[in-house]
Amino acid sequence: MPSMEKRDTRMEIIRIGTDLISRQGFNATGIDQILKEAGVPKGSFYHYFKSKEDFGMAVLDVFAGKYSAMLDSYLLDEELPPLSRLRRYLERGIEAMEKTAFSKGCLAGNLGQEMADQHEGFRQRLEEIFASWQQKFGACIAEAQASGELHPGQSPEVIAEFLLSGWEGAILRAKVTKSPKPLHDFVEILFSHVLK
Amino acid sequence: MPSMEKRDTRMEIIRIGTDLISRQGFNATGIDQILKEAGVPKGSFYHYFKSKEDFGMAVLDVFAGKYSAMLDSYLLDEELPPLSRLRRYLERGIEAMEKTAFSKGCLAGNLGQEMADQHEGFRQRLEEIFASWQQKFGACIAEAQASGELHPGQSPEVIAEFLLSGWEGAILRAKVTKSPKPLHDFVEILFSHVLK
Repeated sequence: MPSMEKRDTRMEIIRIGTDLISRQGFNATGIDQILKEAGVPKGSFYHYFKSKEDFGMAVLDVFAGKYSAMLDSYLLDEELPPLSRLRRYLERGIEAMEKTAFSKGCLAGNLGQEMADQHEGFRQRLEEIFASWQQKFGACIAEAQASGELHPGQSPEVIAEFLLSGWEGAILRAKVTKSPKPLHDFVEILFSHVLK
Repeated sequence: MPSMEKRDTRMEIIRIGTDLISRQGFNATGIDQILKEAGVPKGSFYHYFKSKEDFGMAVLDVFAGKYSAMLDSYLLDEELPPLSRLRRYLERGIEAMEKTAFSKGCLAGNLGQEMADQHEGFRQRLEEIFASWQQKFGACIAEAQASGELHPGQSPEVIAEFLLSGWEGAILRAKVTKSPKPLHDFVEILFSHVLK
């Protein structure tokens, strides 16, 4: 099944590209480096992608799809009350970052920082991805307010924006300090002052 | 005074380099592009800097010095109570970012995202810079607690870490959305829930 094989090679290039872009950024990641690590012959890149930008957008699409499903698995988990779902997502996120020694950060945060002013297509796709996360956080916060777990005085959408900004910033700070402290401080203040 | 002239050319290269790095990142900023915009002959770069890394560190040092003085001008302003100083700094920051259409973000945040895993010297210098900002925020928050403007229940250092993460994250989100909304939402929740 050649079409199957083509798809697998494409996904392998995307998987390795995602890892390299997460660690070193889009501009610093060369097509040659990706193909070498994927064990794919040079020159076959354009068999799978029209351009490096097309490849970058494919990396973002695969990442967004996986991250969305992962977020739903936490935030729609009806076994837990809404605020506990949020806390569990954040705490598992800290554990995941500790496993990679805070070297990757958030792919969307990294690319947003690097590419928002260099490539309008990337910027728009990243804006959509962040908006979808914010919407998921907001729905969970609205559920907490509706159930009486959280005081209903503040707009869920504004709290969700605040949560997303704070979390992205704490991930950046953890990358720079190589320590979980900014992440723990963020979660502590978030639950003791904002989500209470 | 040739030594004076040399210093001015070096500062002009740093000034233009800072602007380019702020907009497009360190990896994507070529030495040729900087020299062309500075009107300095190609080849004279190594007269002023040992390497591109040496130049990047000089950019960071100049930025850190200026930013530190600017932060002090707000946070040590005894004409205002401590929390009003913090709010004024954040609100002026939003105005400054609106003027550049959210295209630059924070140089330290951008470089942290891009370089923390690529260059240990940059990472260490950025960690020092962030720590110095956190210290300044923490001192202002401690002053607010001591004067009774802020409830003393929470460590100023932890609140300062939270403030720095949230602000950096909101700047990133403003860059991606090309809107001041993440910045306004951050300031609103910060003062209504955390600094109260």
